[in-house]
Amino acid sequence: MKFATLPDGSKDGRLHLVSRDLSRCAPAKACTTLQAALEGWEALAPALEAEYGALNAGGGVAFDPAAALAPLPRAWQWLDGSAFAAHAELMMQAFKAAPIDSQGKPLMYQGMSHEFLAGAEDVPLPSEDDWIDFEGEFGIITDAVPMGVNPAEARRHIRLLVQINDWSLRRIAPVEMRTGFGWIHAKPASSMAPVAVTPDELGPAWAEARIALDLLIDWNGARFGAANGVDMGCGFDDLVAHAAYSRKLVAGTVIGSGTVANQNYREVGSSCIAERRGMEIVDHGAPRTPFMAFGDRVRMEAALPDGTPLFGAIDQRVVKGGA
Amino acid sequence: MKFATLPDGSKDGRLHLVSRDLSRCAPAKACTTLQAALEGWEALAPALEAEYGALNAGGGVAFDPAAALAPLPRAWQWLDGSAFAAHAELMMQAFKAAPIDSQGKPLMYQGMSHEFLAGAEDVPLPSEDDWIDFEGEFGIITDAVPMGVNPAEARRHIRLLVQINDWSLRRIAPVEMRTGFGWIHAKPASSMAPVAVTPDELGPAWAEARIALDLLIDWNGARFGAANGVDMGCGFDDLVAHAAYSRKLVAGTVIGSGTVANQNYREVGSSCIAERRGMEIVDHGAPRTPFMAFGDRVRMEAALPDGTPLFGAIDQRVVKGGA
Repeated sequence: MKFATLPDGSKDGRLHLVSRDLSRCAPAKACTTLQAALEGWEALAPALEAEYGALNAGGGVAFDPAAALAPLPRAWQWLDGSAFAAHAELMMQAFKAAPIDSQGKPLMYQGMSHEFLAGAEDVPLPSEDDWIDFEGEFGIITDAVPMGVNPAEARRHIRLLVQINDWSLRRIAPVEMRTGFGWIHAKPASSMAPVAVTPDELGPAWAEARIALDLLIDWNGARFGAANGVDMGCGFDDLVAHAAYSRKLVAGTVIGSGTVANQNYREVGSSCIAERRGMEIVDHGAPRTPFMAFGDRVRMEAALPDGTPLFGAIDQRVVKGGA
Repeated sequence: MKFATLPDGSKDGRLHLVSRDLSRCAPAKACTTLQAALEGWEALAPALEAEYGALNAGGGVAFDPAAALAPLPRAWQWLDGSAFAAHAELMMQAFKAAPIDSQGKPLMYQGMSHEFLAGAEDVPLPSEDDWIDFEGEFGIITDAVPMGVNPAEARRHIRLLVQINDWSLRRIAPVEMRTGFGWIHAKPASSMAPVAVTPDELGPAWAEARIALDLLIDWNGARFGAANGVDMGCGFDDLVAHAAYSRKLVAGTVIGSGTVANQNYREVGSSCIAERRGMEIVDHGAPRTPFMAFGDRVRMEAALPDGTPLFGAIDQRVVKGGA
């Protein structure tokens, strides 16, 4: 199934089924919001599947991804992993930092979840001097998860896959990191591509609880990266189980992969500017690529190998916000 | 005004006004949930004030604080500060750690907010081996706050004051802290005392956006601490402004003070076990007080100098949870 949330004046928007080719959509009948679908997934999925089948056979109205909200315009919980070793290793090499010792556990932080920006929405940020960066990620959304699940049980709670831009303010990030408290200023609202999909839509590209697809990233119209999501050091099932060690996870918990990165980053490029600057530091002793300026655009999209679209595109602009 | 949320089968519960002496309550008429009150505060407050005045004059039914949910049983955002210098200094001295350099900014982490336990609810945690500790705190709840507010503007968005137990797993906390990503395992669901109050209920004890009241803490029936909230290194107004630097705050954002602590902790005691153990390390080279065992109780309460109750009591037990 493929889902989008269209604006209807409410905070959670109106849930729609979207056709497999993302050309058409129809309001869901079994429930009105994606949050409600996730809270009642077992009971509601058969009816939603029937609606999705009917939509793929015909009907509905034209789907405009640029008009969609985030599939979950707000979520009760957003936990972002950092599961790509290539990203961590390059950052450590560039900044001559010791590797992070997480005692064998996944890296994960709790981010703000009361607002996910739409994929086409302007991104208001206080200052270019904070070193504005995008971070292309894949993510998953769970139904309700009990405390203490193991990874095999956790995998069954992964109901939807999504694509995320985890906006980061790089000048602030290391300062907040050194406090040990995680990030507040450095992690403003993230963005979510317009369509959430069930794992079966990926076929073999949903592999060992990883999204084995290239995440194509363009910055101001130029290709910046095409890293593949398969290289996660642990799967999303491990991330869910990690998150649920001492808490139950509310239905609608969003968990991110961290910046998608591959070991051959010199060939495939990067999913964030910080990595390219890291390579420049390694090669030249100093970075050459600036961070984003107000007015800059970033586009992020992934498709199946046969070209079938999945999440639609994040395609958005950073703008001056705040006081 | 004083508010409590009573169970009605819904996730957000049913908002009630509570009489000033916490003896009686009545369902709010102007809105049905505390979240709705916070979203429409300016418009709803006059009607709620009239209801509160009528309740204080008589009527309503007996209020049972042990039957109440958390005033906000779930919140879209929970940000916890660490604003008491005495707590930080003792921890650093005991563990021979360098002071945290936050470049003059408040310390704050984003915690899980999709569940606040009730003040009388059992607290399910996976293992005593994680070193279970309570942390007595005061907190505030905001209405909607724009990105970039200054502290003076921020203070006007502080609509309610609350009392919080920020449960912590001390064996895990330093490990997660060293990653820089903040806490996931070490910070399970927090608890909230049954009554949220408007700042005017404190009179002069709401001083420079600080709660100048003793937080009385009993562990298994024995007095453990009576530190005063006045010693915050920055006020809640500064914490709100800090939180809103690169994000707007959703109505219903809960912000905590961090563990209430005073410089004369040897006289007034502590609001968490880790501090007492810290003193024992300083005095004897090793801690003597164990952390909590399943079945242990903690009680936390604060009142005005004339004895007028405010938040009601947190009085709860830790139990084995998880798989």
